[in-house]
Amino acid sequence: MTPLAQALLNPRRIALIGASADGSRLTARPQRYLRRHGFDGDLFPVNPHAESVLGERTYASLGDVPGAIDFAYILLGTEGVEAQVAACAARGIPVACVLADGFAEAGAEGAVRQARVLAAARAGGVRLLGPNSMGVVNVAARTALSTNAALEAESLPPGRVALVSQSGSMMGALLSRGAARGLGFTHLVGTGNEADLTSGEVASLLLDDPAVEVICLFLEAIRAPDALAGAARKAHALGKPIVALKLGRSPFGAELATSHTGALAGSDAAADAFFSAHGILRVTTLEALLELPPLVAGRCPRARAWRAVGVMTTTGGGGALVVDALGVLGIEAKCPDSAASALLDGAGLPRHGRLLDMTLAGTRPDRVIAALGALRAAEDTDLALAVVGSSAQFRPHDAVAGIVEAARQPGKPVVAFLAPQADASLRLLAEAGLAAFRTPEGAADAIRAFCEWRAPRAVPMAETRINVPDAPDEADARAVFAALGLPSDAVVMRGDPPAGLRYPVAAKILSPDIPHKTEVGGVVLHIADEAALREAVAAMRARIAAAAPDARITGVLVQPMARGLAELILGFRRDPEVGPVVLLGAGGVAAELHRDTALRLAPVTQEEAHGMIAELRALKPLTGWRNLPRGDLDALARAVVAVSRLAGVDAVAEAEINPLIVGREGEGVTVADALVIPASRPPPAMPR
Amino acid sequence: MTPLAQALLNPRRIALIGASADGSRLTARPQRYLRRHGFDGDLFPVNPHAESVLGERTYASLGDVPGAIDFAYILLGTEGVEAQVAACAARGIPVACVLADGFAEAGAEGAVRQARVLAAARAGGVRLLGPNSMGVVNVAARTALSTNAALEAESLPPGRVALVSQSGSMMGALLSRGAARGLGFTHLVGTGNEADLTSGEVASLLLDDPAVEVICLFLEAIRAPDALAGAARKAHALGKPIVALKLGRSPFGAELATSHTGALAGSDAAADAFFSAHGILRVTTLEALLELPPLVAGRCPRARAWRAVGVMTTTGGGGALVVDALGVLGIEAKCPDSAASALLDGAGLPRHGRLLDMTLAGTRPDRVIAALGALRAAEDTDLALAVVGSSAQFRPHDAVAGIVEAARQPGKPVVAFLAPQADASLRLLAEAGLAAFRTPEGAADAIRAFCEWRAPRAVPMAETRINVPDAPDEADARAVFAALGLPSDAVVMRGDPPAGLRYPVAAKILSPDIPHKTEVGGVVLHIADEAALREAVAAMRARIAAAAPDARITGVLVQPMARGLAELILGFRRDPEVGPVVLLGAGGVAAELHRDTALRLAPVTQEEAHGMIAELRALKPLTGWRNLPRGDLDALARAVVAVSRLAGVDAVAEAEINPLIVGREGEGVTVADALVIPASRPPPAMPR
Repeated sequence: MTPLAQALLNPRRIALIGASADGSRLTARPQRYLRRHGFDGDLFPVNPHAESVLGERTYASLGDVPGAIDFAYILLGTEGVEAQVAACAARGIPVACVLADGFAEAGAEGAVRQARVLAAARAGGVRLLGPNSMGVVNVAARTALSTNAALEAESLPPGRVALVSQSGSMMGALLSRGAARGLGFTHLVGTGNEADLTSGEVASLLLDDPAVEVICLFLEAIRAPDALAGAARKAHALGKPIVALKLGRSPFGAELATSHTGALAGSDAAADAFFSAHGILRVTTLEALLELPPLVAGRCPRARAWRAVGVMTTTGGGGALVVDALGVLGIEAKCPDSAASALLDGAGLPRHGRLLDMTLAGTRPDRVIAALGALRAAEDTDLALAVVGSSAQFRPHDAVAGIVEAARQPGKPVVAFLAPQADASLRLLAEAGLAAFRTPEGAADAIRAFCEWRAPRAVPMAETRINVPDAPDEADARAVFAALGLPSDAVVMRGDPPAGLRYPVAAKILSPDIPHKTEVGGVVLHIADEAALREAVAAMRARIAAAAPDARITGVLVQPMARGLAELILGFRRDPEVGPVVLLGAGGVAAELHRDTALRLAPVTQEEAHGMIAELRALKPLTGWRNLPRGDLDALARAVVAVSRLAGVDAVAEAEINPLIVGREGEGVTVADALVIPASRPPPAMPR
Repeated sequence: MTPLAQALLNPRRIALIGASADGSRLTARPQRYLRRHGFDGDLFPVNPHAESVLGERTYASLGDVPGAIDFAYILLGTEGVEAQVAACAARGIPVACVLADGFAEAGAEGAVRQARVLAAARAGGVRLLGPNSMGVVNVAARTALSTNAALEAESLPPGRVALVSQSGSMMGALLSRGAARGLGFTHLVGTGNEADLTSGEVASLLLDDPAVEVICLFLEAIRAPDALAGAARKAHALGKPIVALKLGRSPFGAELATSHTGALAGSDAAADAFFSAHGILRVTTLEALLELPPLVAGRCPRARAWRAVGVMTTTGGGGALVVDALGVLGIEAKCPDSAASALLDGAGLPRHGRLLDMTLAGTRPDRVIAALGALRAAEDTDLALAVVGSSAQFRPHDAVAGIVEAARQPGKPVVAFLAPQADASLRLLAEAGLAAFRTPEGAADAIRAFCEWRAPRAVPMAETRINVPDAPDEADARAVFAALGLPSDAVVMRGDPPAGLRYPVAAKILSPDIPHKTEVGGVVLHIADEAALREAVAAMRARIAAAAPDARITGVLVQPMARGLAELILGFRRDPEVGPVVLLGAGGVAAELHRDTALRLAPVTQEEAHGMIAELRALKPLTGWRNLPRGDLDALARAVVAVSRLAGVDAVAEAEINPLIVGREGEGVTVADALVIPASRPPPAMPR
C-alpha cells in the first residue's frame, strides 16, 4: 500500500477541523461515527470555541495538534476552507478532505474558489478529497470518517466491494440498501467535486487492497478519463471488475451539445463507449449496482457472450416475469440444448420450453442441484438463473440450499431472482457470495451488463502530423482525410474546368467562410458536361458574390456525382468527458429521426469499425439481407478507421463527412461532403 | 353485491374438496389459512379417508355436506377435477374453484380436458374460477381461501387495492412485497387459466365493493377483451382506476406472429393499444404495480398531460438519479414556472435549475410544505415529487411529516422517492395514502403511466356490409377500401388499354393466386405511353403463363405512377388477444429496421389517426420540419380512419396497403398496392 493509500484509506491520526461540540450537528458526526464504529486511532478535534468535543480534548488550531497527522477532514463552511487547506499544507498533512459545497458545482465563482483551494493544496503537497466530499469509510479498519447519516447504523456489514461515489448522499443510500440484505462494503469513498483526487485515482488505490474484489462507482460525470481508464486496465490485470452507474442517460443531458455530431451522439453515448472500451460494466439501475458485484467478483470478461440464460423456476409467473424483462434487453431464456437435455433426462427432470418449471418436480436441494447443473452444462448460455417463489420467504434455508450448493461446483455463474419479499434468503445468498436479484429489471440490467462485459481494448493512439490550416475549406478537409487514408476524387477548379472529369459532376464553392454552402447557392448538382460546368460555376460565383460579398473564395470543388446504396454521416469529435470519439450514423434525417448511430472511442480498429457497422440498422439492407445488393462494408470500415485516427491529430477538434456514400461491394465509399474544424478556434455550429 | 359476487368474494359456507389431513400438505393450506386469519364461517372439508381434518369434521363426499354451499375449492389432482365439478353442479353450488393445473396451459390434451370441465360447470350453472387458480382472499372478511404460501404471514394488512392475478405465485409475491411496506389489499383473486371467470368479469364484481378503490391486474394474456373493456368502462364511471402489469413485452412474444403486419406490430403493441384505449394504466415494472395505486386512487384521468414534474430533494445525487430515470422515459423535471417561483421566493426558498435542492434550506416540515406547495402551484407540471435522503432512514416521522401535510392540501399529486433503505418511511407514506417509490425506475414507470392515463375512448363500431369475394385480387381489395372511403385511381384492363390514362403508368397482373407479383414478373413500372403499355402487358402475360401456368388471371391493373413525400404501410388485422387493430408504419424496410410504427384498436377517429401520424418518426419531415414540404396528413388520417373501419367488416381478416404514398399538402394519398385477406380462409403469408 502506498503512503497515499495508507493516509487516505487507512488513516490512524485524524484531524477533524471544525468538529462541533454539539453532538446533534452535522459537523459532530465524523467524531461520533468514528468512535461508534470502533475507530481506535487518534482523533484531533480542532475547535477554538470548546475545550473538549464529545469528551475528547480539542485543539484551538491545526497548529496545536501534536505529531504527524494522516488525514484532515475540513468540516467548516465554504469560506473557511481555503485557509485550512493552507494550514494542512503548512503542516505537511498528506490528505485533506473538504465537506463544504459551494465550489465548482455552484457556478463560475465557485470554480474560482475551488481553483484557489486546489492551488493551496498543491503548493504544500496535500492531496485533496472533495470538495463536497462525505469522506472515507474503511469497514475493516473501523474507520467511519464521514458525515453520512447512514453511519447511524448499529454496525457496518463487511463486504468485498469498494464504493467510490461522487454523490455523498448516494454513498449512504447504497450503504443502507446493501446492509438491509447483507451486502456490505470494504470501503466507501466520497469523491465529491474531484478537484484533485478523482474516482479513477481512488479506484486505483483501492485495487491494491487484497480485500477489495470489486469496485463500484456512482458517477455524475467522468472527470479524469485517463485516470479512470488506467484504473480499469489495472483492475483487469488484477482480475477485479469495476461496475459503474453514471447519471446523464436522459435526453436532457444532450441539451448542451453544440455540434451536429454532438447532438446526435449525446455525451451519454460517449460515456457508454468509454465504459465499454475500458472493460467497465455499466449498469443503469440502482438495484443492479448492488446486485451485480457478486456475479462478476473473481471472474474475467469473456471474448463473446450468447446473451442467453438457462432458467429454472419454482414459480411460473415469477419466471415468466424475469424472462420477459430479460427479453426486453435482448437476453434470451434458452430451451435446454442437447448437453443440458441429456442431464435433465438423466435426472428425470422436465425440459420443455424456455422455463425449467420445478413446481412439480419438487424443490428439494438435490433436485435443484441437478437442474442447475444441467442448465450450466448448456453450451449456448452465459449463466443459469434460479427463480424462487414463496419458499424464499418462509423457508429461506431450504429455498437457497440447492442454489448455493450448485454454485459451489465450477462452471458458469448461478444467480437467483426471488419473487416474494424474501430478505432472509437475500441475505443467505449474499453470504454465500451469489448474485441475487429483487426486481426483474435489476436482474435483467445486471445480466445484460455481464453479457456485454469485454476486456479493456488496447488501440494504440498514433500521433499523426498533418498540416491543418487555421481556416480549412472543404478541399483542405478532404486533404486531411486523404492523409489519414481516406482519399476522395474531388478536384479543385480555380480557372478552367480540369481535363479528364467524369461527368455528370457536382460543383461546390470553396470558402472557409461559408459553412452552409447550399443556403447561398454554392452547390450545383448533376452537371452534364464541360460547357454546363463553366456556365454553372460562373452563375454560382455571381450568386455568392451577391449573397456573401465578404467571403474569401478559394476555388470551386468539382467531383463526379456519386451513387450508392446508403448515405451515412461519419463524424469525429473530442467529447468533453471522455475525449476523442468517432460516430457513424444513418445519413440525412434518418440519424436524427431514428437515433440510428454507433459511437466508439477513437481510434478504432477495423474490427471495431465493423462492430459499428453491424450496429447501424440503416446498414442492414447492405449485408445481403433479403437478397438486396451488398454494400462495400470493408471500404466503409476502412473509412471509419481513417477518420478515427483524427484522435492523434491534435490540430483537429471536430470533423464530419456528411454524407459518406457507400457503394456496392468493391465500389468503395465516396466522400460527398467534408468538414474539418481545427482545434485552434472555437468550433462553429456544423451545417445541417 | 350480486349473488355471484357474494359467493365468489365473500363466501360463508365453503367446501374444501380434497383437503388433506396432513397439515404440511399443500391441500391442507386453505383450511389452515382460513382459520389462521380468523374466518368464522362454515368449512366443510371433503375427504373420504379421514374422520376429521385439522380438528374439523370431514365429509366423505360433497353430497354428504349439509345445507347450501357458497364456494367449493377443488384441491384434487387434474384427473379428479371433472367429477367434482359435476358434483358441484349437482349440488347447485354457485362457484367452484380449481387448483390443479394440467389444463389448457399444458397443450392440446389439457385444452380438451378444460373444455370438458367447463361444460360440466355450465351444465349445472356453476361459475368456475381457474383451473390453475390459487383461490380468493378477502382481507376484511378474513377469508384466506387460497393455497398461497404468502398466507403463512401472521396477519394481512388491510388496503384499498384489489388484486386480480392470472399467476397464483405472483399473487403471493405481491402480497408479501406489499405487506413489507404497509401496502395491503382488499382482495386477491387468482384467476388462473380463466376457463370461465376472466379477469375482466372478476374486476367488474370487485368494483361493486365500496372498499375497493383501485384494481391491480397481473396478466399473462388478455383472455376476454370485451369483459375487460367493460370492466374498464365501469371502473372509469365509478372513479376507480385499473392498473395492469402484463407479460409479453419481449421480442420472443413476436415469434409466433404470422403476417407482416403482425410481425411488425407484435401482440404487445396491440396490448398497449388495448390498455390505452380503455383507460387502463399499464406499468412495466413489478415495483410500480404496487406503488402506482396510491397515486391514482380517487383521481380521474386527465385530457392531457405535461409529462413533467416539479422535484424537491434533500439529496442531490438521489434527486439527479430519479430525474435521469424520468428523463429516459421522456418525463421532464421542470424548473419552477413563474407561479411556483413567486411562491418559492416568498418562502425564501432557492429556485435554480431542475432540482429544488433543500439540503441547505432545511428539511423542517414547514419548509417542505412551502416547497411542495410552490411546486404544486406550477402550471406546467403533472405532479410534485419529493426525494428524501438519509432522514427517511433514521428520522422517518420528521422526513415524511412535511410531505404528508403538504399532500393534504388540494391540488396535483404529491409523491415521494426515498433514496436509502427506509422501510418505516415507506410505511408511514403508505398509511397516509401517498405513493412512495423504492427505485428510480419504479418511480419513472409509475409517473409515466400516470401521465399517459386517458379516459376510455368510445368509438362506435359500425357494422359495414361490404361484398368481399372468397379469393379477392388486388382490384377487389381496392374496391373494399373504396367502399370504406379510400378510393384509388387504378383501373382494370381486360383487353385494350382504357382511354384517358394518365401516363406514365404501372401495370400489375391481377390474380387471387399470385400474392408475390414481383417475383413472377407480374409488375412493370414507368410505362410511358399506350404502345408501351400494350407491349408490357403482352410480355407480362407471357411471363406469368410460363411462371405460374395454373394461376387464375383476372386482368391487369393499371394505375398512374405516383410520387409523394413518404411511403407508408397501412394495415389492419384482428389481433388474437385484443381484436381489430390498425397499424401505420414507415414504408419499405424502414418499419422493420427502425420499428417505426403506430398501432391502435380499430376503428379510430380522425383525431386518433392524427395521433398515430404524430407518433411516426418517419412522418416528422412532412410536418413542416426544417422547411421541408408538408405532406397531406389530413388525407392520410382519413385513409387510416377508412382502413380502421374494416373492424366492422366481418368478412375481412387482414388487409394491407403497402405502400401508401403520401402526397404534398392537398395532393392526397395514393394506394400503390392493396391486399385483403378474407376471414373465410386461413390467411397466407403477406407479401414481403
